[in-house]
Amino acid sequence: MGTPVHRVSMRDAWSRHVNPDMESERRKQSFDVERLTSILDGGAQNTELRRRVENIIHSDPELSIKDIYFMSQNERYENAIRKAVHINMIARRLGWLQDGPELTYAYRALAGDLSFNIHKVFLKALGSLGTTEQIAKWGELCQDFQIITTYAQTELGHGTYLQGLETEATYDPATQEFVIHSPTLTATKWWPGDMGRTATHALVLAQLICSGAQQGMHAFMVPIRSLRDHSPLPGITVGDIGPKMDFDHTDNGFLRLDHVRVPRENMLSRFAQVLPDGTYTKLGAAQSNYLSMVVVRVSLLLGEILPILQKACVIATRYSVVRRQSRLQPSDPEAKILDYQTQQQKLFPQLAMAYAFHFGAFHILEFFQQAYSAILEGDFSSLPELHALSAGMKAMVSDACTQGAEMCRRACGGHGFSKLSGLPSLVTKVTASCTYEGENTVLYLQMARFLVNNCLQAQMSSGSTSQRSLPQSVTYLAAPVLARCPAQKAADFLCPDLYIAAWAHVAAKLIKDSVHHLQALMQSGMNRPEAWNQTTFQLLQATKAHCCYIMVKSFAQKLEELKHEPAIQQVLKRLCDLYALHGLLTNSGDFLHDGFLSGAQVDMARTSYLDLLSLIRKDAILLTDAFDFTDQCLNSALGCYDGNAYERMFEWAQRSPTNQGNPAYEKHLRPLLQSRGAKL
Amino acid sequence: MGTPVHRVSMRDAWSRHVNPDMESERRKQSFDVERLTSILDGGAQNTELRRRVENIIHSDPELSIKDIYFMSQNERYENAIRKAVHINMIARRLGWLQDGPELTYAYRALAGDLSFNIHKVFLKALGSLGTTEQIAKWGELCQDFQIITTYAQTELGHGTYLQGLETEATYDPATQEFVIHSPTLTATKWWPGDMGRTATHALVLAQLICSGAQQGMHAFMVPIRSLRDHSPLPGITVGDIGPKMDFDHTDNGFLRLDHVRVPRENMLSRFAQVLPDGTYTKLGAAQSNYLSMVVVRVSLLLGEILPILQKACVIATRYSVVRRQSRLQPSDPEAKILDYQTQQQKLFPQLAMAYAFHFGAFHILEFFQQAYSAILEGDFSSLPELHALSAGMKAMVSDACTQGAEMCRRACGGHGFSKLSGLPSLVTKVTASCTYEGENTVLYLQMARFLVNNCLQAQMSSGSTSQRSLPQSVTYLAAPVLARCPAQKAADFLCPDLYIAAWAHVAAKLIKDSVHHLQALMQSGMNRPEAWNQTTFQLLQATKAHCCYIMVKSFAQKLEELKHEPAIQQVLKRLCDLYALHGLLTNSGDFLHDGFLSGAQVDMARTSYLDLLSLIRKDAILLTDAFDFTDQCLNSALGCYDGNAYERMFEWAQRSPTNQGNPAYEKHLRPLLQSRGAKL
Repeated sequence: MGTPVHRVSMRDAWSRHVNPDMESERRKQSFDVERLTSILDGGAQNTELRRRVENIIHSDPELSIKDIYFMSQNERYENAIRKAVHINMIARRLGWLQDGPELTYAYRALAGDLSFNIHKVFLKALGSLGTTEQIAKWGELCQDFQIITTYAQTELGHGTYLQGLETEATYDPATQEFVIHSPTLTATKWWPGDMGRTATHALVLAQLICSGAQQGMHAFMVPIRSLRDHSPLPGITVGDIGPKMDFDHTDNGFLRLDHVRVPRENMLSRFAQVLPDGTYTKLGAAQSNYLSMVVVRVSLLLGEILPILQKACVIATRYSVVRRQSRLQPSDPEAKILDYQTQQQKLFPQLAMAYAFHFGAFHILEFFQQAYSAILEGDFSSLPELHALSAGMKAMVSDACTQGAEMCRRACGGHGFSKLSGLPSLVTKVTASCTYEGENTVLYLQMARFLVNNCLQAQMSSGSTSQRSLPQSVTYLAAPVLARCPAQKAADFLCPDLYIAAWAHVAAKLIKDSVHHLQALMQSGMNRPEAWNQTTFQLLQATKAHCCYIMVKSFAQKLEELKHEPAIQQVLKRLCDLYALHGLLTNSGDFLHDGFLSGAQVDMARTSYLDLLSLIRKDAILLTDAFDFTDQCLNSALGCYDGNAYERMFEWAQRSPTNQGNPAYEKHLRPLLQSRGAKL
Repeated sequence: MGTPVHRVSMRDAWSRHVNPDMESERRKQSFDVERLTSILDGGAQNTELRRRVENIIHSDPELSIKDIYFMSQNERYENAIRKAVHINMIARRLGWLQDGPELTYAYRALAGDLSFNIHKVFLKALGSLGTTEQIAKWGELCQDFQIITTYAQTELGHGTYLQGLETEATYDPATQEFVIHSPTLTATKWWPGDMGRTATHALVLAQLICSGAQQGMHAFMVPIRSLRDHSPLPGITVGDIGPKMDFDHTDNGFLRLDHVRVPRENMLSRFAQVLPDGTYTKLGAAQSNYLSMVVVRVSLLLGEILPILQKACVIATRYSVVRRQSRLQPSDPEAKILDYQTQQQKLFPQLAMAYAFHFGAFHILEFFQQAYSAILEGDFSSLPELHALSAGMKAMVSDACTQGAEMCRRACGGHGFSKLSGLPSLVTKVTASCTYEGENTVLYLQMARFLVNNCLQAQMSSGSTSQRSLPQSVTYLAAPVLARCPAQKAADFLCPDLYIAAWAHVAAKLIKDSVHHLQALMQSGMNRPEAWNQTTFQLLQATKAHCCYIMVKSFAQKLEELKHEPAIQQVLKRLCDLYALHGLLTNSGDFLHDGFLSGAQVDMARTSYLDLLSLIRKDAILLTDAFDFTDQCLNSALGCYDGNAYERMFEWAQRSPTNQGNPAYEKHLRPLLQSRGAKL
């Protein structure tokens, strides 16, 4: 058999002790890591429950994710199905609820390497859009997997722009059925997860046509596969869309519907109804169909997107204290790479983001929970703000986490390119979040529309006596303008009030400039849509500044809450400062443009920023330890708690299928090498 | 067998005609696309030869790359070996030389999906470091693959920092042999391509120890596998490092050497020699060992890195004229997404870079060819500049191409995440170039060292009479300082002299500020290495500005040469303007910092920039057509010449192995679904 590969057995001696370069990082603890973990978990009881779940998951050999880097797409899929079924058995046995915390923690422990995830998206959509009866009926079937569902919105030719979807649902009063149909190739549903090979039912988003009139997007329950033998039902063409950049474990699918009939009851009808005779009645606001997307986006932040950045920070920071390269002083041994300013500059802004986004996302979640209850009661007043916030924050967080994870990956040099480091799959997974559940540019512009409207509102009301109050997140648009930043020395930039005011200034300025530009174009004769299009470059810039302002503010608010925990407050404040200043320095042009900051003040900010890097350096490992990811969940040869990166890289590589023989030798290499007779 | 997937046959009717949305883009041609192609190729005769080679490659079914997105790592490897052997046969038959243009074009046509690529790197190293006899001996064995070679530099614990390599080569005068040895786990050679399963010989970089003295890095020819049966030779432990983010076709390997002996002649000895008695003699400059890295880096720019960005531009731009989404005007049909300012803002800066870097890289190549001949003759005077330029440009181009390719990928929304679009593999491939052949931060800092030295030189000589001339690329450091940009209206920013001067100003300012910072730290008592470390944040910024300046200048020079081709000059000038202004707007803080630009001037630059987007829009498809990539080479369902993106996505997906049955149904899904008896 070709060339047997010579193996070296490491005998695992290395795993019994912690790498001394790692140990020294944990020797002096300026704060209580365990306490920070419980703050992140939202309470010590949550930490305890999470660890209990993790113990169950990690002690079950059926649920190991160790070998996933070696698997093909088909293997990953089958493996994820197997594990999802197994988890479901555990959940039944231990009485974990579908929406309970245990399954959320289990999902985290397994890094999401499970099937049936869209089942949960479906349940959220059902909960938002279904009537009480529909929720009861379909919810129960879902609960114990008598059916497996998917959420079928995007089409081959249509994505984030909902109104453009081509799939039709034509009501036929004769039979009281909807006829669901894909009129063109581009109407083929494309991308829904779990649909390619798994789901029995799809919640299909389609243009409702009633008595000849188009009534816009509605959601329809459509059985797609036989519950008897899983074969596609009549009129259904369904399959897998093939290889992707990531999500090998998920069967993203395509679906064509050829005049498929479903009963009238299969349209989700909380906010709109079709009566038996075909009469269409609206029961809610026009935006209500977007509600389920808002729900999903908010849950994505903490459940999907942010943990990826956090893990990337853990892996890269740990590797950076065991990797030594080059010398800081000619007489010293090679230095830990985390001692280089360039490495700190790569990693610490990501670490600061990982914390900022955590607290920011919790902040949005709280607002969401209030607003959502009101909406379900029929009070839609906070929906515009909620929609804008969820859209903008999803865009901002996914963009930043993607950049951040890739930054962490590259900060690990060549080893960051090995899948065994765990980093490539973090990057390829998180980058998808810039596109799914709303493409980011479209989402930013949805927030921009909200900002423009409120900016106009603020301008109108500023002169009048009827000061209609602005939504909370944009009150600063009506605040008095601060012309110059008062900072006089570097340390002034470590004051949250100062940098929050700076971000408010820049965000307000950019929003107002955009509005001005938009109005100027319209006054010059351009119609509004074209003027809008010609202003989008500026609107994006303004929206991003607004998001940064929101994030900085919510992080600073969290610090306030921690005033009774000075050690933790201090270490988190450094991250908050760093996050704010990193954004300021990266976008210094916006702060210098109108003279709000002078060049000298930017230099002061940079001085403070660079000082923060050295301060954070001391706590870096502890700050990443506090996320409390298990080694199994990180699944990284580089980033384990014990710091034995090289030993693990070497050992894991030996297990690769590429080391199981080489048929190419006999077939191709030997004939090539021996074609002229070896002369050596 | 579980669920047979329902298939739809497209019967390829769609491939007979061009998508009308694509056709309309090519109807009006403001310049001669074919002429631009030949300029890019360096002459019409090159275009002709390239196409002849492409015809040979693409008409040979053995060389199809169509199914690579469906393959496992093992399949990709075997496939790449098979094709490399096949190409070698073709080359022998047609008399193509190993270093000739035909094989370069063949490599391009196959998107590099071949083995034996490190064989070429080895040949470059041999040519730089070997004596005439060594080049003759080993070169001949390589030429017809009597041996297969790899270049083994990086180690598990050591990368870009050459001096840190641990592998030892101890000379034994008794037998006139070197004893090559890996003293530790971290000394294991790690990453060399073609080494895991293929190479018979490795050029091992090791610390030479002669008569007890360390003499630094030298290169040694080490046989690693038997030429009889390919088994590892005694003392050799070798294998594959496992799964990676990309480069599945390459067997990156590990190699441990346990006191392996090679004869004295196996040390490459152009620049240093060990005499039989162990006497060590240097025959060249200290930097000469770096020469082969310089050679490789320069060839990477045009051969590896840049084509990836160009292809990403082609695919994303083509998709953006057939994809329609949302409405620009309420009464219009859905708009081509390329008509949105946001989409133009995503793609056109990348397109401008793709052209800027092409001409910039040719510029460096010319300089390199002059300098290289001189160096081989023993004149090392231009090596510092060559080393700095090759390092900085490799870093800048690979960074920008990676960002650009990912931007293009995301600009294609969900479909950009499908491997069938071709974009994911472009991104995962190009991102490796930020790390291989020198990690980018290290490379930038190598250039920074050159800039700092020359800045000091300029400062010293400015007062004195002995104006020692600076190297060509940094003469601007000694030029008189322009305090304010003279632009008075938006159109002034379309003047190359103006923006070249602006970039020179900013680069010079940032370099001088860094030097000042460095000196201030040292005057405050810090020693130089630590002061250097504390200045690296600023040095990186300065170096990037310098690279931008060089790139803008070389693009503008190219425009000069095209003055007799006004139509092509005009369209390229827009790209040059866009490239320069995009950089200016992205880094506006640097231009505003000292008042060189005012806020009002930045707004003017933005106005010109946005106007350019609309102008380039008209020629966008033609500009991407001009790169003249074949459909086969793009291997993208989204980006083919005919614009039939949706039809191809649908058809390619059907071929996926994920649509060949679903064993998970019988094993896992059926028991789950039927565990409570289906009630529907």
